Amino acid sequence: MNSYNELKKVNEKIHNLGHLGAITSWDQQTMMPSGSNEARSKAMAEFTVLMHQLSTDPKIADLLAEASSEDLNETEKASLREMKRSYDLSTVVPEDLVKAKSLAGSKCEHAWREQRPNNDWKEFLNNFEEVLKLSREEASIRSSKLGLTPYDSLVDLYEPGMTTEKLDKIFSDVRGWLPSLIESIVEKQKSINIFEPKGPFSVEKQKELGLKVMAKLGFDFTRGRVDISSHPFCGGVPEDIRMTTRYDESDFVQSLMGIVHETGHARYEQNLPKEFLGLPAGTARSMGIHESQSLFFEMQMGRGRPFLESIHKDIIAAFGDSEEFKIDNLVSIYNRVEPGFIRVDADEVTYPAHVMLRYEIERDLINGKLEARDIPEVWDEKMKMYLGLDTRGNYRQGAMQDIHWTDGSFGYFPSYTLGAMYAAQQFATVEKLHPNVNESIANGDYSQAFSWLRENIWQKASLLSTDELIKKATGESLNPEFLKKHLMKRYL
Amino acid sequence: MNSYNELKKVNEKIHNLGHLGAITSWDQQTMMPSGSNEARSKAMAEFTVLMHQLSTDPKIADLLAEASSEDLNETEKASLREMKRSYDLSTVVPEDLVKAKSLAGSKCEHAWREQRPNNDWKEFLNNFEEVLKLSREEASIRSSKLGLTPYDSLVDLYEPGMTTEKLDKIFSDVRGWLPSLIESIVEKQKSINIFEPKGPFSVEKQKELGLKVMAKLGFDFTRGRVDISSHPFCGGVPEDIRMTTRYDESDFVQSLMGIVHETGHARYEQNLPKEFLGLPAGTARSMGIHESQSLFFEMQMGRGRPFLESIHKDIIAAFGDSEEFKIDNLVSIYNRVEPGFIRVDADEVTYPAHVMLRYEIERDLINGKLEARDIPEVWDEKMKMYLGLDTRGNYRQGAMQDIHWTDGSFGYFPSYTLGAMYAAQQFATVEKLHPNVNESIANGDYSQAFSWLRENIWQKASLLSTDELIKKATGESLNPEFLKKHLMKRYL
Repeated sequence: MNSYNELKKVNEKIHNLGHLGAITSWDQQTMMPSGSNEARSKAMAEFTVLMHQLSTDPKIADLLAEASSEDLNETEKASLREMKRSYDLSTVVPEDLVKAKSLAGSKCEHAWREQRPNNDWKEFLNNFEEVLKLSREEASIRSSKLGLTPYDSLVDLYEPGMTTEKLDKIFSDVRGWLPSLIESIVEKQKSINIFEPKGPFSVEKQKELGLKVMAKLGFDFTRGRVDISSHPFCGGVPEDIRMTTRYDESDFVQSLMGIVHETGHARYEQNLPKEFLGLPAGTARSMGIHESQSLFFEMQMGRGRPFLESIHKDIIAAFGDSEEFKIDNLVSIYNRVEPGFIRVDADEVTYPAHVMLRYEIERDLINGKLEARDIPEVWDEKMKMYLGLDTRGNYRQGAMQDIHWTDGSFGYFPSYTLGAMYAAQQFATVEKLHPNVNESIANGDYSQAFSWLRENIWQKASLLSTDELIKKATGESLNPEFLKKHLMKRYL
Repeated sequence: MNSYNELKKVNEKIHNLGHLGAITSWDQQTMMPSGSNEARSKAMAEFTVLMHQLSTDPKIADLLAEASSEDLNETEKASLREMKRSYDLSTVVPEDLVKAKSLAGSKCEHAWREQRPNNDWKEFLNNFEEVLKLSREEASIRSSKLGLTPYDSLVDLYEPGMTTEKLDKIFSDVRGWLPSLIESIVEKQKSINIFEPKGPFSVEKQKELGLKVMAKLGFDFTRGRVDISSHPFCGGVPEDIRMTTRYDESDFVQSLMGIVHETGHARYEQNLPKEFLGLPAGTARSMGIHESQSLFFEMQMGRGRPFLESIHKDIIAAFGDSEEFKIDNLVSIYNRVEPGFIRVDADEVTYPAHVMLRYEIERDLINGKLEARDIPEVWDEKMKMYLGLDTRGNYRQGAMQDIHWTDGSFGYFPSYTLGAMYAAQQFATVEKLHPNVNESIANGDYSQAFSWLRENIWQKASLLSTDELIKKATGESLNPEFLKKHLMKRYL
């Protein structure tokens, strides 16, 4: 067996064992009784150590070196490139630092769960400064090995190929038009009279409706399922996707669109190319591209009038035919724009402002230009500038609202807005190819969009770089204009 | 760190990783969508290889040798003994044979699922002869290493310390009284007029009733749960027990008693001593002792009048107060005795006949005194003798009914009847200690029985040999008289 094939075996072994980790982790969030958490955490920690050992085995380095001089075809070369990337990412940081950061992150996150409701920034800062210190160390090591700036070396973990240079350009563009666009939309929406749907909406009915919509969106129930968790996610493995949602009996609106969102993630995973399953090249391209699939489903399609028309009958069948379920009212509900403190509750227009603010802060934190204690002041300044909101003293709804920084996941935030931009660019391409796509969607036929996604995104997995992927799919590199146009068209 | 403590670490690691295997295996039987089976089977196979490597690491042999000369207290010595037993059991058979047998077993079991409904003994025999051949090889290797007869070396896997000599004695005793006892009981029950409960009994109501009964029986829902599977089992890990049941809307009787049965297994696991969790000495003693707990719950308590009185109100609350739910009628239903072809459907009186027959056949198969092709003839002879039933040509309800032999689990069957005997002996001890125990049970207070089980069985785990355990708990070694007395008292 040549070295490339031996590497395939090693990676498939890691994938197979990872399967158990993914299902057990899903179980922990959906099924596990509370009293079992201690034993489960121990088991998962043991498993993490094992997986780390397997994926940093020095034998892999030798195989990678040997394979690089073997006679490989183009896809094998791409596959080898991703194996190397995956190995390098696992081995570049010394194990002691990985452990120390994981420990400090767990401690900070655990305490944060109580500190946030208490608005206790001071105590939070104690733990958080340690997390930041270790994250800077990590960034510095990655930086010197990868030849990137410290912050870029973290971004690269989630969005390979993305840099501060490109992000600065993107967000400086956004900063130019977003605040005034938000103002105009809010002004315009003042005249819209919304009839609020009144519950209770039984969990049973919501579940039935959700399943119907998932089926319409092509979720493969023979290789996946949907359950309930307090924080919705899409987990499991491509061969067995475990999606979750949550139900609020006083509000069906969020749960339904949550299901549409997660189904986007799910279909990407379920339609990754079978011949590369188990290999790094067969996994989703990046966090930004993953988010582009959920946002293609939720924002480009889901909240648009054509899609809402296509599921209107199902909504009426579930909840009745009264005033608040008229299609115009539903469209208004699903397109309401309102600046708010909380990112996860934000609409698609104000969302980029939340991300931009976090990007600017975490970039400066990691690059040593900002200290943790100064975050609230900068946060408040930027919230005033971008969304016109005053957050002084309100840490709970300010810098303490997200989980990402508590465990040191710096570099992740940009993925959300990159995802929104990729999604807009992808949908615009579909619209260009199929000028009648919105009509088809309104009639419940989503096949034009899905066939395009399957061929251009899902089946490509990580065989291309993100830039190549998006160029091949849409004809050009990432271009924020598409998101801007989409927002103006839908909301102005 | 001394070698004993190092062994503890190794075993705890195996336990922690085993946690993921247990939960994923539970998921496969309860939650997993059908299309994911191929990927899951691959993942589980990879995991099995890994676990086998970890538990047969030659380093363990060195540590075991070193630890045996260390200064250990009595429980540490017992713990070390079980570590050694566990290691020996894993390493005694060459890996090639383990793999070949596992392969042949999977093949035979898989084909059997179609061959059984088709009554296709001839085709089954083809696969089964290979399984038997490899099982004989395994038995021969174990036999020479353990100094036991071939069959005894397999029994020892499930019931350490049990031998053909003891089993022959036990079953020759049973053979003496069981057939005539069955005849008398069947004759006596002819005069009982049973009102059959008519469904449908909604799954919702059955579930509610089942949960209520589990709670009364002390199941700890903070460290376990109950779900649905086509074959009920009790899985998971002691820290997170996953029990299953199945519901039949036309019959609540079986599901309810199935829950009582599995709760017996579950409480044993949930009450193993915490200080030995993760070590072989902290696991359940044997299959026979495990079965004694489910049968203590189901047979000694569950189907007895006092227990049925204690849950009578709950049954009425669930299904109404009509004729068929009168207590006398329920007692008659739960104590019906009827010779039948199928072991898993058998009542507690005819059950030992099924086991005896299998014991005699598998003992002779493994010891080379009987060939696979001759099973149906012997089966028919014995079924006539023990239960008066003719099975000629009826392989489906004859030798092809059980899964055990298809994958080579020879030596397991005796555990069922040993369990029934241990249970009768245990309950008789509780009755002697607490002459009012049946009155207490009727009043819904099961604490006398459970306190005794906790102290004498559950908390002892594998710290004693089975014989020591049962002697300490009941004052004497296993004595089949207790089961005989129990059956005569309840049914004559």
